[in-house]
Amino acid sequence: MDVETIGSVGEFPFIDRIVARLGPSRPDTVVGAGPDDTAVLRLPGGRLQLATADSQVAGVHFLPDRTPPAWIGRKAAAINLSDIAAMGGAATHALAVLAAPPDTPADFALAIVDGLAAELARWGADLVGGNLTRGPALMLDVALLGEVNAADLLLRSGARPGDAVMVTGDLGAAAAGLAVLLAEADGRTVAAPPHDRDAVVRRQQWPSPRLDVAPLLGRAGATAAIDVSDGLAADAGHIARRSGVGLRIEAARLPVSEATRRVAVALGVDPLQWAVAGGEDYELLFTARPAAADDLAARVAAATGVPVTRIGMVTDGPDTVLARADGSVQPLAGGWRHFG
Amino acid sequence: MDVETIGSVGEFPFIDRIVARLGPSRPDTVVGAGPDDTAVLRLPGGRLQLATADSQVAGVHFLPDRTPPAWIGRKAAAINLSDIAAMGGAATHALAVLAAPPDTPADFALAIVDGLAAELARWGADLVGGNLTRGPALMLDVALLGEVNAADLLLRSGARPGDAVMVTGDLGAAAAGLAVLLAEADGRTVAAPPHDRDAVVRRQQWPSPRLDVAPLLGRAGATAAIDVSDGLAADAGHIARRSGVGLRIEAARLPVSEATRRVAVALGVDPLQWAVAGGEDYELLFTARPAAADDLAARVAAATGVPVTRIGMVTDGPDTVLARADGSVQPLAGGWRHFG
Repeated sequence: MDVETIGSVGEFPFIDRIVARLGPSRPDTVVGAGPDDTAVLRLPGGRLQLATADSQVAGVHFLPDRTPPAWIGRKAAAINLSDIAAMGGAATHALAVLAAPPDTPADFALAIVDGLAAELARWGADLVGGNLTRGPALMLDVALLGEVNAADLLLRSGARPGDAVMVTGDLGAAAAGLAVLLAEADGRTVAAPPHDRDAVVRRQQWPSPRLDVAPLLGRAGATAAIDVSDGLAADAGHIARRSGVGLRIEAARLPVSEATRRVAVALGVDPLQWAVAGGEDYELLFTARPAAADDLAARVAAATGVPVTRIGMVTDGPDTVLARADGSVQPLAGGWRHFG
Repeated sequence: MDVETIGSVGEFPFIDRIVARLGPSRPDTVVGAGPDDTAVLRLPGGRLQLATADSQVAGVHFLPDRTPPAWIGRKAAAINLSDIAAMGGAATHALAVLAAPPDTPADFALAIVDGLAAELARWGADLVGGNLTRGPALMLDVALLGEVNAADLLLRSGARPGDAVMVTGDLGAAAAGLAVLLAEADGRTVAAPPHDRDAVVRRQQWPSPRLDVAPLLGRAGATAAIDVSDGLAADAGHIARRSGVGLRIEAARLPVSEATRRVAVALGVDPLQWAVAGGEDYELLFTARPAAADDLAARVAAATGVPVTRIGMVTDGPDTVLARADGSVQPLAGGWRHFG
């Protein structure tokens, strides 16, 4: 019999196994490992603390030869900041662990840390410590703390049938950027306008967390949220599973930028594929009380300039589906997986 | 001109460069990156939060073929718990990032997490989240939160001339264990009693944090503390540097176990070398008001069973020295370095 490996089990089933083995929680652990990407801890005085960790590994999450070092640090910050945003919170303090081969140029490593600290500072968070260790490849792990008022906290589990499904910004750009980088690494020229090429590559290499939007959502009627890191399909599935509902997403409503569309044409790809299955957009996917949805979108756009699009609705489930303009309906599937 | 690398700069000077580049701190950051291995953050209501992160990398911190997986997890917990202990605190919540090749056996990886969670639970801390990622080698990063009353907080910077220098437990056992493992990996048989061999290997593979001792120190007259992770020489140097003092350590007073001494004989090594320069003992090295020192040692031993030994005194400096029984005095040097 074959030995089960992390790769054969798969990322999320393996995490489920870990969570199933954990013992009882401390009384001040409000949300522990498992349900959301971010833990929720009770602080003295009723405020809630958020705690999350995520990493960037050379060759897995970035191509070291093709990524400016500051962008490696910025992205490591951004993906964690995005997890805090998905909970409706604000970021406060970060720890970083940098593993690197000893022959890593000092300036390269310092530029990584500069990028990390700059992106954290942009959102009011301090880099307060961490560790430097020898390792076989560059790897940057960031643990990030945040805080949120109990009334503003958003979990994946709050969606109710009839809620509107909403998303910030646009989808598929990060996947488009990755496709461009891989094509170029392969020696191919991407026949898209340079401005569009640069725009999607930047979305892949330097995503912007939606921390400006996050604190506006809960008080305006949002019921559940997640950041789009694994792709719309996978992340919609997380909300559906944790809330015990289904989601019906209208393909024609998905916001896809003109730059993404033009790069798709140049690469001969259906941009809907990137919007649905591509990861790392770091937009916020959330649900909202239907009566509040339009007003919420207008309020967010007015306060932050970030567009919010209503892309579907929450159903009784159990399926999460994509409804095409031609009337066909298909299961949503195909999120990014690190293993398997 | 050669390009500077992390290895050529060295671990601590490189960290100093990082710290020098960081911007101003948030008002709730009491101790940020640099002075101690653990950050201190102000919580609502006057309590202080502690935050630290440390990692275990295959081939650097452990030999994957020779270390039971649960011990990898336990050690990753213990080294972080030890950092919380060095601040006089208690551990509360942890995040873990596990990087692993996809062909890692699932049971092996689960056993790592089991060991991590068990060691955390032993000290009342919850594993509340983290991340699983593909990586070129096994690497386990842990970020650990803790808390401490302001009156019990110990920093590296509190030592004053005339204070006693104290250490918990005994020194050099972890270095002895590493020497045994390296000799055995080399095909050599270590002619020490099996019980002694197992005792020092266990100290290397499964250090025990001094969290039972930590909360007793500040209120009993301790003035500064650090955990002995890089070796007595290096860690004494950290206290001296941060406090602006010198330390005079009496070689004859250093506590070295009989097991460590017998393994040293078998390997033809001076055990004093391990006690001074060997890392990873995770004992607490601390200073105390001289009038309080003896009473403190007795109180800790009575409450926890952990012996505390007075090994020297704090001086005006600037040098930190080892005084030998023959009257000679030499600079303390030779701590463990990850780079260079």
